[in-house]
Amino acid sequence: MQDFILTLADLGNTNTGNIETIFAQANGFLGVRASGPVLEKNATPGSFVNGFYESNEIIYGENAYGYAKNHETMVKLFDLRTIEISLIDEMFSKLVQRELFLNMKTGILNENYVYATPSGKQIKISLESFTSHANRHVYAQKWNITALNFEGNIRVIKNAKHIAPAVDSEFDPRVREASTKLVFEKNKLTTVNSNLSLYFKFDEYNDEFELNKGQTQEFVQLYQLSRENLFLDIDYDDLKVQQEHIFQEFWDVSDIEIIGDDRLQKGIRLNLYHLFNSAGRDGKTNFAAKGLTGEGYEGHYFWDTEMYLLPFFIYTQPDIAKSLLSYRVNQLSIAKERAKELDFKGALYPWRGISGHETSAYYPAGTAQLHINGDISYAFQLYEKVTGDHEFIALARDVIYETARFWISYGFHSSRGFEIHEVTGPDEYTALVNNNYYTNKMAQNNLYYAYELAKRFDENEKESIFWQQAAKQMYFGYDNKRKITQQDDSFLSKEPWDFDETPLQNYPLLLHYHPMKIYKHQVLKQADTLLAHMLFAEDIEQMARDCDFYEPLTTHDSSLSRAVHGVIASRLGRDKQAYSFFSDSAIMDLADIQGNAAHGIHAANMGGSWLGLVYGFAGLHFTSEGELAFENHLPREIQAIKFKIKYKNEIKEVFFEQKGK
Amino acid sequence: MQDFILTLADLGNTNTGNIETIFAQANGFLGVRASGPVLEKNATPGSFVNGFYESNEIIYGENAYGYAKNHETMVKLFDLRTIEISLIDEMFSKLVQRELFLNMKTGILNENYVYATPSGKQIKISLESFTSHANRHVYAQKWNITALNFEGNIRVIKNAKHIAPAVDSEFDPRVREASTKLVFEKNKLTTVNSNLSLYFKFDEYNDEFELNKGQTQEFVQLYQLSRENLFLDIDYDDLKVQQEHIFQEFWDVSDIEIIGDDRLQKGIRLNLYHLFNSAGRDGKTNFAAKGLTGEGYEGHYFWDTEMYLLPFFIYTQPDIAKSLLSYRVNQLSIAKERAKELDFKGALYPWRGISGHETSAYYPAGTAQLHINGDISYAFQLYEKVTGDHEFIALARDVIYETARFWISYGFHSSRGFEIHEVTGPDEYTALVNNNYYTNKMAQNNLYYAYELAKRFDENEKESIFWQQAAKQMYFGYDNKRKITQQDDSFLSKEPWDFDETPLQNYPLLLHYHPMKIYKHQVLKQADTLLAHMLFAEDIEQMARDCDFYEPLTTHDSSLSRAVHGVIASRLGRDKQAYSFFSDSAIMDLADIQGNAAHGIHAANMGGSWLGLVYGFAGLHFTSEGELAFENHLPREIQAIKFKIKYKNEIKEVFFEQKGK
Repeated sequence: MQDFILTLADLGNTNTGNIETIFAQANGFLGVRASGPVLEKNATPGSFVNGFYESNEIIYGENAYGYAKNHETMVKLFDLRTIEISLIDEMFSKLVQRELFLNMKTGILNENYVYATPSGKQIKISLESFTSHANRHVYAQKWNITALNFEGNIRVIKNAKHIAPAVDSEFDPRVREASTKLVFEKNKLTTVNSNLSLYFKFDEYNDEFELNKGQTQEFVQLYQLSRENLFLDIDYDDLKVQQEHIFQEFWDVSDIEIIGDDRLQKGIRLNLYHLFNSAGRDGKTNFAAKGLTGEGYEGHYFWDTEMYLLPFFIYTQPDIAKSLLSYRVNQLSIAKERAKELDFKGALYPWRGISGHETSAYYPAGTAQLHINGDISYAFQLYEKVTGDHEFIALARDVIYETARFWISYGFHSSRGFEIHEVTGPDEYTALVNNNYYTNKMAQNNLYYAYELAKRFDENEKESIFWQQAAKQMYFGYDNKRKITQQDDSFLSKEPWDFDETPLQNYPLLLHYHPMKIYKHQVLKQADTLLAHMLFAEDIEQMARDCDFYEPLTTHDSSLSRAVHGVIASRLGRDKQAYSFFSDSAIMDLADIQGNAAHGIHAANMGGSWLGLVYGFAGLHFTSEGELAFENHLPREIQAIKFKIKYKNEIKEVFFEQKGK
Repeated sequence: MQDFILTLADLGNTNTGNIETIFAQANGFLGVRASGPVLEKNATPGSFVNGFYESNEIIYGENAYGYAKNHETMVKLFDLRTIEISLIDEMFSKLVQRELFLNMKTGILNENYVYATPSGKQIKISLESFTSHANRHVYAQKWNITALNFEGNIRVIKNAKHIAPAVDSEFDPRVREASTKLVFEKNKLTTVNSNLSLYFKFDEYNDEFELNKGQTQEFVQLYQLSRENLFLDIDYDDLKVQQEHIFQEFWDVSDIEIIGDDRLQKGIRLNLYHLFNSAGRDGKTNFAAKGLTGEGYEGHYFWDTEMYLLPFFIYTQPDIAKSLLSYRVNQLSIAKERAKELDFKGALYPWRGISGHETSAYYPAGTAQLHINGDISYAFQLYEKVTGDHEFIALARDVIYETARFWISYGFHSSRGFEIHEVTGPDEYTALVNNNYYTNKMAQNNLYYAYELAKRFDENEKESIFWQQAAKQMYFGYDNKRKITQQDDSFLSKEPWDFDETPLQNYPLLLHYHPMKIYKHQVLKQADTLLAHMLFAEDIEQMARDCDFYEPLTTHDSSLSRAVHGVIASRLGRDKQAYSFFSDSAIMDLADIQGNAAHGIHAANMGGSWLGLVYGFAGLHFTSEGELAFENHLPREIQAIKFKIKYKNEIKEVFFEQKGK
């Protein structure tokens, strides 16, 4: 049980912003940062509603045809945490003590604070709170306020404040400032440009009461936020019981035990906890790159969902997986419009955004990442394969057809095969290249899957022949001399990056070098070819050669990189390296390895840590006969692991001990 | 003489904006658009001072390290043309007649207008005006106002108005709007951000006079604008005599006679006239892409100067050429800073701008056009070769060294040779490629020239060995099968553009297709490899094969394209095609072939028309022994041509008749 409790002592960085993120609570609809009840300097309190965004026109230094038109920014909403607490003539302004106990097992956060007045009167504030998973519109709090060393009249004002989005002064401040406008009307707020409404119902608290020394005053507060003006009667204790029950059900299937390493155990549980909390459940919202825990990446959804988060959900919480995939089904018409705007057939999903419209303002590292189409198709296919839910795929299959149509229209047949030019792969340190290996692999898979569905449903007969043909003839560059997979047509002819001459403070490179300097060198931000190898079991020797070549060129400047390298290392029997990558991935936010957890969790990496353990250490794979199989790659640093997966409605328990034991 | 007079009948498009551009007057410092004296609908009057710009921070949808920081916009200044003319109770608001006579021989514009009141009273306004080349701070006007069919008291108010820059509503309107603020203080105006000042001295006219029927009132107005608060006494008639003298001297050397084709004759003269008018003379200003005749391209200087305009000036007006090159000498320190910012050695000149700082907000078609460095070096070298002015080069040689240093730092040695990656060539329909042929050629030439100067001046000994080595080993891609020069490493492997399926209204492509769609196809905006062939005499058969391959893929969406294709066609003996390209180039603005002359002249094309005739029809070239030589490529449509060039201080007259005559 103890290893389900997260305290401040577990954190690698106890800066205010970091605490707010790591202890943030969310339920897929609503997220609340865990800021202290008395506002601190550097605090960034606020709440978020999944998919609730404001849009603002993108201003380009130089515009061109087909560029994304609007920014979308998840709105930073009410501060539901700050209270004003005072005596008649003194404020409790000085923080004396802070304790947080996040019970990940139940999704309930307990906090204790001691604040003092300038003259030394101390008060204790205990807060129990949770974002309800039983009623996702509710954030529930129970307060206990105790006079520690005095008696007197205490005044408490607790009214949720609207918070303006923070201004990022480094990059395009004007655009961000413009996004703060909200129109309030009774219990409703509306965004100006995106014209989205949100209703709220708050129990405002504004009271004065007398406390004797040691006496405690208790009160409950319930905040409700909804896209509809419809609120149910709710009861704190009922919701709390339900919360515990729902979390129990979650952990029953999704938990991972890492025996013999408390730190990693806590890290992975924190990751799974946040994955469960921030995933959209309604088919209209998805999983933001930073979940519902912070403003980073403007609350946008990326390929992170399909390639880093969905495996976890597909294998352990298939209903959530289905919701996340439904989001893409609902976006299909917008994706078709986008392809048409760009003069291509089929559908092109946006690289980033919330509504389904492309919002990437730098297309070489945005729209050009066409692999998003293949990523989405891959996730549907994996969902079907693992859950056996053919009904859903029957309903959703247009997603697969339309993305396949896009590839046929965007690519072309040459004497070398079917080629796809002018794309950017996952590795954003190379852009606008031809025949990116990962992209071509994903497109190929997309086309085969579309062909298979067309066969199964006996439709698109003529077209599907072209899909099959393009998939069969897909071009993959290969260096015959060095026997290395080419990341793209030009990568191997680039100049090597001079790592020896790169000072440590110049990482991540993207903040210290112009894109031209980065793009023209052999240097990677993150796994690219190796990610494809992780998905499509590659011959082990080939994988080893590619890993030997690409790993030393990889900066891991992206938080999406380490987990994949970890899985590859496991498969190659490079246990020590696998352990190292996995460790970084498991405790990335717990230890604040990326240094910016204050902006929100690194959700994709959290999903990646599950991959590292399940795909990596436990070697989950499909045999050539299509059978699910495992393989023990447990590094010697870990005694044993234990977890469950759901496969075609059956729960399978997996337990691996140290090899040799 | 008649063929020096330009009238409205010569114009292919007599829309207001077009007239304002074509009849605009300028003297290298000051430019005035030829708007009518009574303000018309759609009029875009205004004046410009070369190099007088406002800067505004560039807002990026997504910013990154090393991006250009500020826009620079040539300020649209006073309307020096509009007057208010009225009777006590009626305005002369209706334009009845308009005649313009631009005497290109003298640089003096004569205009006659008849305006009517609503009741039919008609007044004639005759205006003689010029932007003085003797005193470049002066714009001089002589007005004659005649009552045609009435008598009465006429009121004339003539006070220069400040004009706000037009808002381009399609692209980044906010940025443009921000550029309108000017601070006025007595006879001085100052820009807010760039903090540049301009002094002015105007004879304001505000008078009432009585005219009998047929009677004429004359008055002279002198406008003076200067960067310093220093104005000389001036006299209209003196300035007019000097103007005629200066223009006489210009035409004495720079005129081209095209015998037997009045239309082309007028076209080429108009081009030479504008080239003479808009070139900066002070070493601190240059030649804007639209001269001083309009706001297009924000008044920016580009490589247009070095590659399209300087040949004309070098061969006929070397003093102007020297001024334009001095501008680059003065910018060298900024160009060195820029290279350093991008983490390279040497100097990198800006792709576009006024102050010398990079202002291109889309680096793939901006900063990535590194060939600007080679273009500048080429122009210095040509200047030296043609004028023999070694003294200037001795002073300016750091420009050549520093640009050479940049190439060494940006490129790298591989097993294929010296390679230059991640660049954009002149053809902006392909971007961020490796080993663009034109770029590598220009870099090679730059390196050789630097090596030669180092030898001559006995300096940079060790370094210059690397320059020579990189130049010698410069890599050029070649398709051995088809025997075609590769535009870049990937061009020949791209998908061909489907010209048959491209509707005419979809040109220029850049306005109708996303860059990714354009970049991934074999389609050119303008001459790229062929421009290199024009400069570096390529084997004629190679040139023919390359022309056969690249010409059909070229849209000529850039106004810089046709002239070069014309020269190539001449050299290949494809006279008919050469004539067609030359014709388009000679009358591009006269006939408004690009459809946007209203935004200002296409200066580079004007220089290009000189190239078409001198490099093309007259076959100017250097023999392998380095001797200047000509070759008759006159197409049958043209009877004869006659022109002069200056070569090493000697004037050479060239006369070519129809071949066979």
